[in-house]
Amino acid sequence: MLPLLSLALLTAAPPAPLSPESELCVSCHLDVHPGMVGDWEASRHARTTPAQALAKPALERRMSAAAVPDNLLNVSVGCYECHGLRTEQHSDSFEHFGYEVNVVVTPDDCATCHADEAEQYADSKKAWALDILRENSVFDLLVQTATRSHGVVDGQVVAGESAVETRNDACYACHGTEVRVIGERVIESEFGEVTVPELTGWPNQGVGRHNPDGSRGACTSCHPRHGFSLAVARNPNTCAQCHLEPDVPAFEVYRESKHGNIFFAEGQGYDMEAVPWVPGRDFRAPTCVTCHNSLLATRDGRVIAERSHDFGARLWVRLFGLPYAHPQPVHGRTFELRNADGQPLPTTFAGEPAAEGLLSAEQQAERRERMRNVCVACHSRRWADDHFAKIDRSVAETNAMTRAATTLMQQIWDAGLADPANPFDEPIERTWVESWLFHANSIRLGVAMAGPDYATFKNGWWSLTGDLAELAEFLRRHAE
Amino acid sequence: MLPLLSLALLTAAPPAPLSPESELCVSCHLDVHPGMVGDWEASRHARTTPAQALAKPALERRMSAAAVPDNLLNVSVGCYECHGLRTEQHSDSFEHFGYEVNVVVTPDDCATCHADEAEQYADSKKAWALDILRENSVFDLLVQTATRSHGVVDGQVVAGESAVETRNDACYACHGTEVRVIGERVIESEFGEVTVPELTGWPNQGVGRHNPDGSRGACTSCHPRHGFSLAVARNPNTCAQCHLEPDVPAFEVYRESKHGNIFFAEGQGYDMEAVPWVPGRDFRAPTCVTCHNSLLATRDGRVIAERSHDFGARLWVRLFGLPYAHPQPVHGRTFELRNADGQPLPTTFAGEPAAEGLLSAEQQAERRERMRNVCVACHSRRWADDHFAKIDRSVAETNAMTRAATTLMQQIWDAGLADPANPFDEPIERTWVESWLFHANSIRLGVAMAGPDYATFKNGWWSLTGDLAELAEFLRRHAE
Amino acid sequence: MLPLLSLALLTAAPPAPLSPESELCVSCHLDVHPGMVGDWEASRHARTTPAQALAKPALERRMSAAAVPDNLLNVSVGCYECHGLRTEQHSDSFEHFGYEVNVVVTPDDCATCHADEAEQYADSKKAWALDILRENSVFDLLVQTATRSHGVVDGQVVAGESAVETRNDACYACHGTEVRVIGERVIESEFGEVTVPELTGWPNQGVGRHNPDGSRGACTSCHPRHGFSLAVARNPNTCAQCHLEPDVPAFEVYRESKHGNIFFAEGQGYDMEAVPWVPGRDFRAPTCVTCHNSLLATRDGRVIAERSHDFGARLWVRLFGLPYAHPQPVHGRTFELRNADGQPLPTTFAGEPAAEGLLSAEQQAERRERMRNVCVACHSRRWADDHFAKIDRSVAETNAMTRAATTLMQQIWDAGLADPANPFDEPIERTWVESWLFHANSIRLGVAMAGPDYATFKNGWWSLTGDLAELAEFLRRHAE
Repeated sequence: MLPLLSLALLTAAPPAPLSPESELCVSCHLDVHPGMVGDWEASRHARTTPAQALAKPALERRMSAAAVPDNLLNVSVGCYECHGLRTEQHSDSFEHFGYEVNVVVTPDDCATCHADEAEQYADSKKAWALDILRENSVFDLLVQTATRSHGVVDGQVVAGESAVETRNDACYACHGTEVRVIGERVIESEFGEVTVPELTGWPNQGVGRHNPDGSRGACTSCHPRHGFSLAVARNPNTCAQCHLEPDVPAFEVYRESKHGNIFFAEGQGYDMEAVPWVPGRDFRAPTCVTCHNSLLATRDGRVIAERSHDFGARLWVRLFGLPYAHPQPVHGRTFELRNADGQPLPTTFAGEPAAEGLLSAEQQAERRERMRNVCVACHSRRWADDHFAKIDRSVAETNAMTRAATTLMQQIWDAGLADPANPFDEPIERTWVESWLFHANSIRLGVAMAGPDYATFKNGWWSLTGDLAELAEFLRRHAE
Repeated sequence: MLPLLSLALLTAAPPAPLSPESELCVSCHLDVHPGMVGDWEASRHARTTPAQALAKPALERRMSAAAVPDNLLNVSVGCYECHGLRTEQHSDSFEHFGYEVNVVVTPDDCATCHADEAEQYADSKKAWALDILRENSVFDLLVQTATRSHGVVDGQVVAGESAVETRNDACYACHGTEVRVIGERVIESEFGEVTVPELTGWPNQGVGRHNPDGSRGACTSCHPRHGFSLAVARNPNTCAQCHLEPDVPAFEVYRESKHGNIFFAEGQGYDMEAVPWVPGRDFRAPTCVTCHNSLLATRDGRVIAERSHDFGARLWVRLFGLPYAHPQPVHGRTFELRNADGQPLPTTFAGEPAAEGLLSAEQQAERRERMRNVCVACHSRRWADDHFAKIDRSVAETNAMTRAATTLMQQIWDAGLADPANPFDEPIERTWVESWLFHANSIRLGVAMAGPDYATFKNGWWSLTGDLAELAEFLRRHAE
Repeated sequence: MLPLLSLALLTAAPPAPLSPESELCVSCHLDVHPGMVGDWEASRHARTTPAQALAKPALERRMSAAAVPDNLLNVSVGCYECHGLRTEQHSDSFEHFGYEVNVVVTPDDCATCHADEAEQYADSKKAWALDILRENSVFDLLVQTATRSHGVVDGQVVAGESAVETRNDACYACHGTEVRVIGERVIESEFGEVTVPELTGWPNQGVGRHNPDGSRGACTSCHPRHGFSLAVARNPNTCAQCHLEPDVPAFEVYRESKHGNIFFAEGQGYDMEAVPWVPGRDFRAPTCVTCHNSLLATRDGRVIAERSHDFGARLWVRLFGLPYAHPQPVHGRTFELRNADGQPLPTTFAGEPAAEGLLSAEQQAERRERMRNVCVACHSRRWADDHFAKIDRSVAETNAMTRAATTLMQQIWDAGLADPANPFDEPIERTWVESWLFHANSIRLGVAMAGPDYATFKNGWWSLTGDLAELAEFLRRHAE
């Protein structure tokens, strides 16, 4: 049944008219999926046409494309405007009550209106996040070891394989799954049988998802369907979907920091929708995106930092150690890196950075300057410089700890006390892994974003010195 | 001293008149306990009479009783209306300035107006939560082992008993304590000596509390005194009082999930009081209760899901492993279950479900359909089905891991390397316990509610494969 | 470039006039640091003169000084009013475009208007927090051991020293650093070269920071620059900058508690700025400061609790075990304590409290009464008493566990199985440290503030009984 009144209100109210196709979509889906439609109704997409969006002054524009196809120009951004795009490129397109639509809306679809964002994203580590895990034999071994099943055969426990579905639930849930069409499925509905494509790895909104149109990523990772809200994307809880302890405690560190303290105390009064975003007017404490990728300007329109959807664009060092912190890679395809030992890693096990593929000192300085400009919006230059000096020291010192831990681990392997064939599966090897993957990372993030518990007792120095003590005692005990 | 002005405002303002008894209560307690009275003043109880509540359309009613005693009908729900109920059934009733009142207001008291809720609750696992721990010898041993004191006798450390007060502070704080009258206590007050009943296990608001009127539970677990707010009960922080890592990381998983992300970013703008609760109008992202027990309807009054205060009413599988995930029990008295080995457990140590007392496949399908209806309010049917398929796989695979861990543990016991007399007290046994109680549970909750860190590095697959490695190495090392 | 319009709005709008000096500050800094200036613009300091603040009724005053210098009286509290204070006492004062200003504004500067707060603070444990770690040889050894670097020399891993910069990033980040002037630095700016003092340990807002004017502490620990907001200081996320698990899980326990549950569900509607703060009118659930230090009153002005910036002023027992919970010290210089064995600890390793320097039973009773008055604003007296009885029991029982753990550790040392020269560096010694520093503390905080997960599975009794099992097994295994 069609809820006529609601639909009447819906189609009458918005200043942006619904296309006839989307009107038809809503006519069935509003009753079946009231939450889905209601979410969209409250969105900017429902209230704005691309023509209106294009008419805004440059600094206030939320749409980066210079133009859009004529048929999209003067209607709101409704169901069909997105799900009906580029169906020929989509292997997941299907006929649905007379219309060809896609299941998955992808970054290449969103690029119709948000061209710059899609382009920036496409070259970033996020877009390549699934490939980074799968195309790198070292990381793939870690993933497989961490997620492998165990069974009981003839009363004995044996380690099995890691199932792709398990990896989809674990590592690939954030990194992205491979979404491929493998057949059809028939679904019973109020309106009779509906045939849809059968997909692998679905549902998923991982940042490096492989999409059925060949694109990578999911804009919905941060701009959740079907509101696609800027305010949600700017909220630190969005980043907290993935950037969590023990490996990447960015959210927890932020929450502990002065920045997080102020935001969680008074952020409900901030203007989280303003474009450009003006420090001191729209907000007082930054969220993740303020420092990492938002367009920031002063009240009179001086640009403090350009918007970027390459989230590493203001970062010079990669704090996330593999196993060492290292200069940021020049593009997102980090599986192409080769260290001096020929491994697909940004550094050797001794910590030497790869000769190619990482930022030069000059490029690092430029990135550092971009971030410093953000800090200086609220802090003195000396404050920013002194803070950056802390990061430098922390990187050097935790890398030295990783070198010490790796030296001990190598001695354990050399003494035959563990088997390096798989360096990630034995208990003592896991202590080594945690020393760099959990504890050195926590310290660096704790220092860089000023959440000191993560540099101290919470997976911090207390834990890292403890790992060294464990590794040393293991060697000593077994040498006796 | 009586704060006259405040009381005048208080008694004049509300549209619902205070009973003479409650007026007297407030006349003393407002000055002594301004926070207690102020909390109530802001409540719906203070602003509504049962007669007004009964006059609402069926779908909008917050009161399920068809009628209430005449004396309650046309006054607000004040102090005396609740504390003066059913005093003959209450062993904690006492004479207080000329009135007979109870210390503890119980679910059977609340049932006067909220009959259906009390009835649904009374048969749920929550109502029996204390009995579940105490009446089950296996769980009781785990509780006692985890909380036993240690003393020093003649220079030697000896393990003592677990004190009931310690259990009240730990496990029973959430599960509920036994509140019994054991005497009287005299308290000095501004108004002279006041004699009140002396109680065991007080204060406590655990979900399975044994009350002095013979009832079980505490409505205040989720509707805290004296506001008894629906908005508070619907907030995920309410469930977070108990459903926390490492054993039940439901809140943390929710917070990490897309649902939590959106709610914590924009939920302050939701209508958390609306009855019925309309997806897409009153809220966009669900909280715990949306999926698990709230009355949901469309804008035009189609019921999506009925309200239930049996919080398992939409659940087909019990993800919480003891030690295996298993079909939900048919009622809350799980201590009545017997596995094939005669233990009071839902499954054998090998994972075989008990023959009786668990949901049949048909009953499971019905529950699953109820939950699917909730999902479909915001998601496509295929999305819901694909998500449920993930849960099924995750249950099967983590149960297989528990079977492997238990096999290794059994081999350790069989080899005399640990003493199975108490299977919970030695370090290696604790590794086994954590494999199912912390890690397999985290994975299942992480998958079911889409917070992937809890399926990965945060007590997830990384930890679970690590437990297996520890158990295997323990066996290997001691066999040498 | 000076943003004329913004400045015009800024200087015209506030009812409190800006001093000419601060007007000059803003004229440059608004464009360079718009976030910094905007933060201040939104503050009470920008909208009020000390003369206006002094005119308020006593109970509503936010300024405790009876008078301020004439030049401050009738201008808003701007940049120069704080940074230009007491420059002769400040070794970090420097000439800046013709004005003498200080980098660091200190508690002794804030005392100009907030005299009582500064005085209360100066004698508290917070003010002495850096000294407490550095002047106590036992704590200093723990700090140094936890943060020491490790290097590789001739292929061998060697433990190095702890660097002061590492301690500044870790323990001292919360406890406070030593901020000393060690030279000058030249900074490039839009306005040419600017010379500023070179400082050690900067930036930092630790509670016991040593300042360049000889004072201790940082008001900005809780009242962050440049808004200095009361609402922020009253928010529990402020305390969560330092009081976090695993050593001091006060915030996590609060968040889990009924108090935190209610606050996080409905606190956005509370009046977090009211002075005095009225339970039941301005707020319903307390935050950290409500119980620990805020001025509370009834609606008609009866004082429930006096404001104090000695945050221990309502505490009788120190739950934080070193290694035992013990009566609160009489002042913040705890490094002056000596136990019966001559160690600088509040108790012996056997648990006997120091003869001097701790609260007497009478003083404890007085503190307890102060806290009870706060509880009674919302709870019955019997509730408060019963809750306090839980705390007493929990202290006794966890102290007994610490005695058992320490006895086992001593037996390990006596048997030569570990080296007591440094009691904090070997893996088994770390288990002992965690038993009291993490687990016994968590239990006590979990009980005292009613977050039972922290008394149970989350660093609670499960972990504490596990530590005892580990220590006992270590002894047994090595004795074989």
